[in-house]
This record gives sequence, C-alpha cells and structure tokens, in this order.
Amino acid sequence: MSKVSTRPPSGMRDFLPQDLKRRRHVVDVVQRVYESYGFVPLETPSVENLSTLLGKYGAEGDQLLYRILKRRDALARALDADGVSEADLADTGLRYDLTVPLARVVAQYGQLPRYFKRYQIQPVWRADRPGKGRFREFYQCDVDIIGTTSCLAEAEVCAAVAQVLRELGFDDFAIEINHRELLRQLVSAAGISPDLEETALVAIDKMDKIGADGVLGELEQRGVAPESARSLLDLLRRDDEESDDTLANRLRERIATEHACAAIDDLLRLLELSRSTPASGHLRIAPSLARGLGYYTGPIFEVSVADLAGSLGGGGRYDNLVGMFGKQDIPAVGFSLGLERILLVMEERRMYPEIGVGPDVLLCWMDVDESRVLDIAHRLRSQGLDVEVYPQATKLKKQLQYADREGVQATVAAIVGEEEIESGEVTLKRLSTGDQARVPIDAAAGFVRGVSS
Amino acid sequence: MSKVSTRPPSGMRDFLPQDLKRRRHVVDVVQRVYESYGFVPLETPSVENLSTLLGKYGAEGDQLLYRILKRRDALARALDADGVSEADLADTGLRYDLTVPLARVVAQYGQLPRYFKRYQIQPVWRADRPGKGRFREFYQCDVDIIGTTSCLAEAEVCAAVAQVLRELGFDDFAIEINHRELLRQLVSAAGISPDLEETALVAIDKMDKIGADGVLGELEQRGVAPESARSLLDLLRRDDEESDDTLANRLRERIATEHACAAIDDLLRLLELSRSTPASGHLRIAPSLARGLGYYTGPIFEVSVADLAGSLGGGGRYDNLVGMFGKQDIPAVGFSLGLERILLVMEERRMYPEIGVGPDVLLCWMDVDESRVLDIAHRLRSQGLDVEVYPQATKLKKQLQYADREGVQATVAAIVGEEEIESGEVTLKRLSTGDQARVPIDAAAGFVRGVSS
Repeated sequence: MSKVSTRPPSGMRDFLPQDLKRRRHVVDVVQRVYESYGFVPLETPSVENLSTLLGKYGAEGDQLLYRILKRRDALARALDADGVSEADLADTGLRYDLTVPLARVVAQYGQLPRYFKRYQIQPVWRADRPGKGRFREFYQCDVDIIGTTSCLAEAEVCAAVAQVLRELGFDDFAIEINHRELLRQLVSAAGISPDLEETALVAIDKMDKIGADGVLGELEQRGVAPESARSLLDLLRRDDEESDDTLANRLRERIATEHACAAIDDLLRLLELSRSTPASGHLRIAPSLARGLGYYTGPIFEVSVADLAGSLGGGGRYDNLVGMFGKQDIPAVGFSLGLERILLVMEERRMYPEIGVGPDVLLCWMDVDESRVLDIAHRLRSQGLDVEVYPQATKLKKQLQYADREGVQATVAAIVGEEEIESGEVTLKRLSTGDQARVPIDAAAGFVRGVSS
Repeated sequence: MSKVSTRPPSGMRDFLPQDLKRRRHVVDVVQRVYESYGFVPLETPSVENLSTLLGKYGAEGDQLLYRILKRRDALARALDADGVSEADLADTGLRYDLTVPLARVVAQYGQLPRYFKRYQIQPVWRADRPGKGRFREFYQCDVDIIGTTSCLAEAEVCAAVAQVLRELGFDDFAIEINHRELLRQLVSAAGISPDLEETALVAIDKMDKIGADGVLGELEQRGVAPESARSLLDLLRRDDEESDDTLANRLRERIATEHACAAIDDLLRLLELSRSTPASGHLRIAPSLARGLGYYTGPIFEVSVADLAGSLGGGGRYDNLVGMFGKQDIPAVGFSLGLERILLVMEERRMYPEIGVGPDVLLCWMDVDESRVLDIAHRLRSQGLDVEVYPQATKLKKQLQYADREGVQATVAAIVGEEEIESGEVTLKRLSTGDQARVPIDAAAGFVRGVSS
C-alpha cells in the first residue's frame, strides 16, 4: 500500500495530551462558571438537516457549510438527473454554530423549562480559509437564556462571560455593546433605503478589519450613495474620551425616533445593571459594532482584548429565530465564547498554570514476575494514584530514563525488585530531585503526594 | 418561511440536560479510571482524509463512511467530468472509529512517548441502519498502548475496562478473548483455503446474531465447502462446562501447528496475568469470537452482559496498522467501550445514582431593584452556589412554582423582598419540605448545603 499523508485535513487539528490538558483547563473553568449562573448543559448532533441550517447565517454562511454527500440510492438518483448541482447532492450538513440548533431544540421539546438557561460547549465546522487562530473545526462555548425579554437576561449572559474571563486570568477585556434596532435607525437616518440595510450592516461589520475608509469604499461598492455612506460613518463614530452617557445623549439628539431612543435606553439599562456584576467596568457602547450573523434583533455584544485581532466571542438578542422553527416566537439572548481565541491569547501571554500531563507513578520492575507487577500496580491505584506500568523487562536504568522523559513525565518512579517483593515494599524515587525511600506498598500514596505537593 | 422539521436527522440525537448529566457521570468514571492506569488524553479531528479511512474497516465499513461533499471549484470540476461517481465528489469524511486516527497520529508525531498509552473519548459516525442502542453518531471510549508486544499491555487494557465497568456498578460482565492467529489456524485446519479466510471470518463474526446454523449457511454461501464449514464449526465449539485449560488442551491436540500453540500460549498467559487485576474472573476463551474489523493481528477481546444483544465494547492487538501510515510497523493493542451500550444497560437496570440537574438556588424577588438582585446573585455565587435568577418581576407564588417545576429543579428558593434588602438577609426555602429560614446573605451556602445534603 502506498503511504498516505498522516497530517489532519487542512484547518483541522490533532490535540496531543499537553494541548488537551490546557484546553480542558479552560473548558472546566467555562463549565463551572456557566453552571454557577444556573445554566444547564445541552448537546446537539454534529449533523443537522440542511433545511435547519440554510438561510440562518446569511449568504456567506451558507457557502461555508460542510455538506454531507448523499449515499447509495439517494446519491444514484441525484447523479442520474440532468444538470446535477450541489443542492441535489446533500440534504444534511455539519453544525455551523450552537445557536440555530438550540432554536430547533426549543421548538422541538415541550418539556423544557419556561426559562431555559442552557450552556453548550461543542465543536462547529466552517469551510473558511484557515489562518492564525482560525480553524475549520473549532469549539464554541455558548450560554443562552430562552423565554424572556427581560434585560436581566442580557446582564446575566454578559456577567457569566466576564466571570469566565476573570477566572481565567483576564482583566483587560472589553465588552462592546450595541443594538440592532439602533443600527437600523442610524442607517435610516443616514438616508440609506431599507433594502440596502442588510448589505450596509455587512459592510459596517468589517470596521475592525478594514477601518473607516475601507467601510466607506465597501458601502459605496454595495450601492450606498457616497454622502449617505459618509453620513453613516459619522453617526457610527465614537471618540475614545466620550463617556457612554455623552454618546447616548449625542445619538438621541441626532436621531430622536422612538425606536432609537428605546434601543439607547436598553443599552444604558444594561450598563447600569452590569455595574452589579463581574462585567462591571468592562462594558461600553460601540455604535459601529454590527455582528455578522443575520438573526439578531436587539442588543448585541462582542468581547475582545487589545492584543488579538478579532474577538474572543460575541452574542446578542434574537427574538425571532425560535419562531422560524416553531409555532411561536420565543425571545432569546445569548453569548458565545470562542475556545481557540481564548487559548491563543493565553498561550501568547503565558497565562497557563502548571498542568501535569504524566501519571503520578511509573512502576519500574526487574527480576519480578509480571503478575506481581500488576498486583502492585492495582494496590497503588487503589490509593488514588495514576500509575503507568513499564511494559517490558529491561534494565532499570532504561526504565528510569523513560520515566524522566520529555513531554509526558511521571512524578515518581516506583521500583520493584526481589528485595521489595520479599518485604512487601516499593522503592519510591522522586524524579525531580533523585530523593528516594522504601515504603510499604499500601503507604505509597502519602509519600507520593508529599513529594508532589 | 415554511416550517422545517425540528427533529435531529435520523440516527442522531439531542441530549437534554438530564440525559447529559447521566452521560457525563459515565464519561467521568471512564476518564478517571483510564487516567489511573496512566493513559493520557488524545483528541483527533472529526473530519479525516478519505485516504486515511478507506481500506481499513473492510468493504462494509467503507460503505458506512460519511463523506463530505467537495466545495466550489473542486466540486464544479468533479461535476464537469463525464460519468461522475461517489469517489469523485468527496475526499474527506467523518471519523469512523478512534483507532485508525490514532495510528495516523502515531505515524505523524515523533515527539510521542515510546510507549504511548492514550485514551480518547469522542464521537464516531457510521451510516448504519439505526436501531435499539445503535445510532449514527455515537461515542467510543478507547484505551490503547502503542509500542510494545508485551502481554502486560493486553492485561492492562482488559484491566482498565474491567475497572471501569466495576466502578459503574457492573459485576456480571464477561470478557471473551480469542486470537486472530488461532482463528487463521482453525480456518486452515478446517481445510478452507487462505483466500477464503477473510470472508470466513466475516461469517464467523455473526455467530452471536445468527447462531451456528446461520453461520454454516453463510459460510457455504461465501464459497466454503459444506464439509469444511462443518469442520470449522466443530473446531470453534466450546462447551459451557469446559474450563479454559481443557479447551486449550483440546485445541492443541486438534491443531498442533507452531503458530496455533503460540497463540494459545498468549491467551493462557493473558488469563494468568488477569488474575492479578480487576478483570480477574471475567475473562474466558471464546474460539468463535472473530471481531469484524480487518486490522487485528493477535489477541482480540469483546465484553458483554447477558441482557444486551451485542457487546459493550471490544478490542485487540493490531501490530500492522501504524505501519500502513508510517515508515515502520509499531505494535499496538487497545480496547474500546461503547458509551451508548453502557448507558442503555444502566438505564434498563436503573443503575444510575441520583444526579441533580437544576441549580442549587433559584433567586426569587419582588419589589426590589434588579441591580440589587444581581448583586445578591453574585454574592451567593461567590459562596460556590449555582444560582439561577428568576428573570422578571412577577408574583412570588409564580416564581416559587417555577422553582419547583419538573425536570430542572432547584434545591432551594432564595427569596428577596424589601425586608430582606433592609436587613441584608435572604429567606431560604427548602423546596422538598417547605422549611424556611432567614439568614445573612453571606451565610446562605451553609444553610443550602445543610439542606441539600
């Protein structure tokens, strides 16, 4: 057989033990904090019907979906038809985010609590161009509150995300907030017609990447009149020194519509409520924040740190999405953290605590029957120790070298030979210092823990 | 927009909070036990190149792969060609098991330990017909030891699996063992030519499902002469009363080849070693155990309980698989547990411990500013409590009804009104009994824990 590539597909990754321990450290914090806010876990399948996914993420999102090829008869029928196209070849695809599956779940299951606070930490797939911190399979960590329009819900999802970041060691993150209704009013006030509203938002969403001049050009390219584009950019501007209240007042003066004022009130209320939460001091209004996804209807959020292009996560209110699946609209708001982005910044800033990968004990042995070795391993494990058994008879020196190897390293080598078998003991050797002592087998844990603490 | 189905695709499942808590209980036990045996975690991407997957699982396996449709230019080129077929439309697919990706990883990364003991708990996808306990997306929990031919490795993976099952509360499982080399020798001794060996093993693998008569018919259908088929069935027979030693001696007499005797010795050695491990008393030789997958080369295992058709898991030695990817053969042995099968039996036998789903506290409030509510929630969470905040102002009675709802239930309702705000206290009400007391906010945890313990 010819050798095939052993690399994972483009944009996909293998997680070796050291990587995984760090990922789990972060996921454990996320999960613990989310649960402390009363969120309960949900998981949905990796594969969804395309009818569930299509039309929820905008045209660009639809293009980035992974579609699963039909099989057997269904595939044969599709291929038999004239002018076969992509749409004929697949009716399922991979999950693109965690929000649309949640909306489907809420519409499907009547037994969910009226206020359903769920968290979900699972991978999603997007056939995007891979880049730094951008992968085709990546994890999202979502919290959502279903069933209420109360601003408490916005405040709680922002608080939960802020608490996660604080517990991970971030103290400099900013949660920018804006409001879809305010954006619509700003677009309208700039003299842009409603049918160009969506395309204008897509252009505004690129502000971080291409700057104000870039957005100006993009708006004109998308059919917005130059003076409207300039007027919109002016409305979206925020001076760094301007306080949220000053900004709110300025916007209220410029666009005094009822909808605009209600949206501004929502944002000010969220700022006020957040002062009583871990998000205090981290929120600020950003009039140019747009968020790419199509389904938002109210406040929107994005969290970032200065040294990362792009965001650590984002979210917002989406009161119409569940209604696309079910008999009735059910209001909802959520926040999603990107695991990979968080890991990237933690890596660059060296924020990880020391995380051991190897077992507590490598059991080394010579001139002993293997049955005795397994018996001793079992007795060590019964004390709560993680024990690797050296798998074959060889010189002790070689076994100890293996115990002390790079990467996956044991804390202690436990050595068993004829003498130890006779006395019912093990010789324990602390690998970092070389200290050693012989102790009764069933007393090993105390020694190992003392050594490793 | 017309309403679409809100059910997950066929063979796929949503896991609601209660389901997920049970799944996590089992996964936590599996993970803890696997780590206690010195296994370290690995995760691989859901998507693999088809060149990695194809040809490893047998023809039937290849047919059950989920293939991912090519995109954009690559798809257009494929569709432009004459006589387009399945093979032209996909070059990646979803993970089918955890063993082939492990072999790829071992061939790819030079920095892995020489004896790589890894565990992996991830979903796999097979386009199989859905049935009871059989899904198209399901989780496998694998342990494998790479880099040694020592029988200690077989004993350790069997011990780890036995320990998992014992800690979950199983005491009646059986681990059947056999040997691929012994099977080959039996097939040969029955007068079946080597080119029919693989198809004969596929037939034998169905013994549990279709019985000896069924296998006899299947063998003849696959081109095995009737007298050879009968002879093979006779060789594969084991009487229930026969001891492993008696069986071994009988087989040694019937086929005295060097290879057969070495394989029998391997099995007896594994039985002997296992007497010193948690697998003690659970292993027995099953000459008709074949295991479907093509890559096994030595001892093979399958674990089952009497009340489940099919197995809870299986595994074996595969010394040539890594060599299909890398420059050299590296020996390996592993055992895989099927999470869904374990859950199914635990469900039917009611083996789950009581697992709470809801938060510790539902915070109910009236005539209080929402900022104060969030502040109190934060102070309760700071005590390590999981706290849900009732999201909107309404009658207290309605809030308490919600706290006590079916499904996701809080342990304690914390009630905050004007009086509590003035005195810096909360009223705590134990939902199961109705007992209540007013305590200082920062002393709530002691009360809740006392109540819930």
